[in-house]
Amino acid sequence: MREKGPIERAISAIGTLPGFGDKSASRLVYWLLAQGNDRLPDLISALQELASKIKVCAVCGNFSLTDPCEICSDPDRDDSVLMVVSDGKDLQAIEKTRSFKGKYYLLGGLLSPRHGIGPERLRIEPLLERLAGEQVKEVILALSSSQEGEVTAQWLASKLAQFKVKITRLARGLPVAANIEYLDAESLKLAIEGRKEF
Amino acid sequence: MREKGPIERAISAIGTLPGFGDKSASRLVYWLLAQGNDRLPDLISALQELASKIKVCAVCGNFSLTDPCEICSDPDRDDSVLMVVSDGKDLQAIEKTRSFKGKYYLLGGLLSPRHGIGPERLRIEPLLERLAGEQVKEVILALSSSQEGEVTAQWLASKLAQFKVKITRLARGLPVAANIEYLDAESLKLAIEGRKEF
Repeated sequence: MREKGPIERAISAIGTLPGFGDKSASRLVYWLLAQGNDRLPDLISALQELASKIKVCAVCGNFSLTDPCEICSDPDRDDSVLMVVSDGKDLQAIEKTRSFKGKYYLLGGLLSPRHGIGPERLRIEPLLERLAGEQVKEVILALSSSQEGEVTAQWLASKLAQFKVKITRLARGLPVAANIEYLDAESLKLAIEGRKEF
Repeated sequence: MREKGPIERAISAIGTLPGFGDKSASRLVYWLLAQGNDRLPDLISALQELASKIKVCAVCGNFSLTDPCEICSDPDRDDSVLMVVSDGKDLQAIEKTRSFKGKYYLLGGLLSPRHGIGPERLRIEPLLERLAGEQVKEVILALSSSQEGEVTAQWLASKLAQFKVKITRLARGLPVAANIEYLDAESLKLAIEGRKEF
């Protein structure tokens, strides 16, 4: 069998990304080639920047240009309110509402027995250490209202019961089984404002 | 408004590729970041190779490591039979059947009045020049049996009627409205063998 050429290698590299198969990867690769120099250089440099410039913030766990990230090192944000989110996509959706001025903590996912994702896969120790301090007065569980989100919120609430902090969650203004990242900014803002004690 | 960071730039670069939107691009970017150094370097180097090593063969129009390409410069392939295909994806599907030993010619697409793709968008002049020579005895129109493929075949057959070459097309063994790139190798092989005079 002959060695794989650049086209086949690119199809393999793209075809194993989530949401892709061999056919869709092949279509994308040939489409990119057909654009000549119009798209590949931009795409490559965007991915290179992503690989070289983005760090993980050791405090909140988000991806960022700096460590600690801009939000964690912002003195104007309230250290006493900590919003626990699944990941950076959900954090971005919440930031867009401009209705939260506290800090964030990223779990790095949600519990999902179906997909074999247990507590050991979530980022939890730094949260426990942080709550052992005196600064945080309220933890907002800002998790999607999907089955995974609910299970994670229940588990986390019992885990955090040992600390003297108020635990709240987003108002049930979210439609059932909705993903935070798809929600419009206004509904999300209302849900933040109407949060209830857990 | 603050300047776009590397994450937003990568989401823009991916979100404007065919098949992507902002949300799916965002999911892919965060997924890539979450893999740490597992996937981004491979993806980047595959795309870099694609950009730097792949040329367009001036003879057939296919993407290739060399110009002329391996197939066009292969002395063991029959110069008297020329297979006209839409693009490199279809050529690859036909090569996989190992049942064709002639040469190829790529149109660079199919006519599509719906999408505003007229004859001026297809690669046609080098084909006319080639047929003005004596070498080609048969032109096989190996186009998908979709509406676009049929329209293109009709148009091309009338365009090539001026030359003393036999014009054939793939046997109607293709299912109606099928795309060549999705057809299994065996059906495609039968269609090549059973080709009929146009």
